[in-house]
Amino acid sequence: MKRIYNFNAGPSALPLPVLEKAQSEFLNFNESGMSVMELSHRSKTYDEVHQKAKQLLKETLHIPDSYDILFLQGGASLQFAMIPLNFLQENKKAYFVLTGSWSEKALKEANNIGKTEVIASSKDSNYTFIPKDFSVDSIDDVAYLHITSNNTIYGTQWQQFPNSTIPLIADMSSDILSRELNVEQFDVIYAGAQKNLGPSGVTVVILKKDLLEKANENIPTILKYKTHASKNSLYNTPPTFSIYMLSLVLEWVQSEGGLAKIEQRNKQKAEMIYQIIDESEGFYKPHAEKDSRSYMNVTFTLPSDELTKAFLEKANEQQFIGLNGHRSVGGCRASIYNAVPVEACEKLSEFMYKFYKQNY
Amino acid sequence: MKRIYNFNAGPSALPLPVLEKAQSEFLNFNESGMSVMELSHRSKTYDEVHQKAKQLLKETLHIPDSYDILFLQGGASLQFAMIPLNFLQENKKAYFVLTGSWSEKALKEANNIGKTEVIASSKDSNYTFIPKDFSVDSIDDVAYLHITSNNTIYGTQWQQFPNSTIPLIADMSSDILSRELNVEQFDVIYAGAQKNLGPSGVTVVILKKDLLEKANENIPTILKYKTHASKNSLYNTPPTFSIYMLSLVLEWVQSEGGLAKIEQRNKQKAEMIYQIIDESEGFYKPHAEKDSRSYMNVTFTLPSDELTKAFLEKANEQQFIGLNGHRSVGGCRASIYNAVPVEACEKLSEFMYKFYKQNY
Repeated sequence: MKRIYNFNAGPSALPLPVLEKAQSEFLNFNESGMSVMELSHRSKTYDEVHQKAKQLLKETLHIPDSYDILFLQGGASLQFAMIPLNFLQENKKAYFVLTGSWSEKALKEANNIGKTEVIASSKDSNYTFIPKDFSVDSIDDVAYLHITSNNTIYGTQWQQFPNSTIPLIADMSSDILSRELNVEQFDVIYAGAQKNLGPSGVTVVILKKDLLEKANENIPTILKYKTHASKNSLYNTPPTFSIYMLSLVLEWVQSEGGLAKIEQRNKQKAEMIYQIIDESEGFYKPHAEKDSRSYMNVTFTLPSDELTKAFLEKANEQQFIGLNGHRSVGGCRASIYNAVPVEACEKLSEFMYKFYKQNY
Repeated sequence: MKRIYNFNAGPSALPLPVLEKAQSEFLNFNESGMSVMELSHRSKTYDEVHQKAKQLLKETLHIPDSYDILFLQGGASLQFAMIPLNFLQENKKAYFVLTGSWSEKALKEANNIGKTEVIASSKDSNYTFIPKDFSVDSIDDVAYLHITSNNTIYGTQWQQFPNSTIPLIADMSSDILSRELNVEQFDVIYAGAQKNLGPSGVTVVILKKDLLEKANENIPTILKYKTHASKNSLYNTPPTFSIYMLSLVLEWVQSEGGLAKIEQRNKQKAEMIYQIIDESEGFYKPHAEKDSRSYMNVTFTLPSDELTKAFLEKANEQQFIGLNGHRSVGGCRASIYNAVPVEACEKLSEFMYKFYKQNY
């Protein structure tokens, strides 16, 4: 069976054993005589899937009981609106650290709903780094501080999270489950699934229960976190198949040794590619500053547009796909999420080395 | 391979050939070397899936060019809020015809956002019929009239839609694609996929383009129909696998002869069950009045709770599942969406006949 080297930025590669398991029980899940997609979301059989996904996420990320775990729809883009609708009170403002286009989008939506302030930004350098030196002057009138933990487009990633006395909210769409995490540093973590968690169509939200008590009331029922928390994410029909796939991906993470092992492997994978970049005498130019480099998205440019084009064409011939960079940065990007095998990164780094030697 | 008789109210049965096709190409879609779930939503390969789903829906429902077709997330429950957010102007009101719990929920959300008026309701009879005699007194100050075309819980269905001079908006979650339809009677049609369209996780919205010009502006970007219409439902990552499944279901509808044939078969299926009910000397009591009966959800009660329990247990033994009625009505419900085979309805009617004869 043909399998390609998939470096897509998301939706992206899924673990082969997960796909094989889903395929094998596609027509008859758990001897139910139905596909998992055909199960009622109110049935015991589906409930076990739902609870398993929740429980595995709780175990894998060591989520304390004081947090709710929600499975929603609409991706991070809907969270950009739901967060301020729920948690930005009229007399308060939201702090933002801008580290890329997705932070900007989150800011824009919050700005339409309430007061905001950008306390740090690397926009002037086209987001080549994660700001470190920023201070939070006032606290009383601040509802929360919003950050984006990994910046898919620019290839930067927070290596250490701010120690904040105000509620910290993070969009972790592109690096959740890629490394060990202290959930208790955060009040809300949200993530679209389509990078490390599963297929697109489900959004995971992990939030401190006591935050719900302070949430705004006068918003549509479906946009209240409280609605979903009180109904175990079964207020309306959930995206059952995506949640099932999430449960399989979480099982796979456990079978691979959990987050510590996954983190180690992700670093190893990224280093293979960064090493070629660093040793290429400037042929490959990294977009991100060294101490802000992402282990999920490696971004780099080549000396000319012609070389970039030639690189992408040749890569394509050799079954590497998804390597074109985002137009905001240009050049190339290798997205190497959890499910991208070590072998794919090895092959890519060999290819990059050869291409540099031939074209330098 | 074991396949059960699936009468679930939604998520519900999917056509076997659709499941088989999806299973066969689950690991390698269209020789891409990837699962359809692993494709970038910006790739040419995915774009063909997306366009195919749109084109097949357009052909199957004869949707004119003056309408947009959107693939959103969040189910009908999110539409309950999006419709008034977009289309209920401050100086206008929305008319509602109440025919069940889902209309009530739609009303409640509109009510939180703007002014509403219930112009007809069958609530007093526990929604046993679709109101026919109602008049629309004023027109100028009315933004739209909202109806629910089929009422899953109560088993009633509009047989003829109101000829309205004001924009008509219909929640068709549980009967879209079940019969021929004149889309031009409506300004907006919306439907969660998990009954006749595919798995849960995608919501189809069909709306008149010129309505977008009059839409409210001051709402979150992701909740504006205009956002999604202008980006061909690719503003944010769509639920790609659900849309792919939708495209396969639409292919299946065409291969079965299109809506005329599907409608004919649905009537035939429903009649088999209604006939047993009608000829059971009052043993099975239908919830819906005759001229409001649904061809999608057949609802009935039995003479006692004991008999209901015995019926459901015996049904279960014979591989019929999903027959328990909703708590608002009690008794039993057979949801017989497009993908439920004629054979399943035949077997069910035989079973019902025997059970009545044995227990009358």
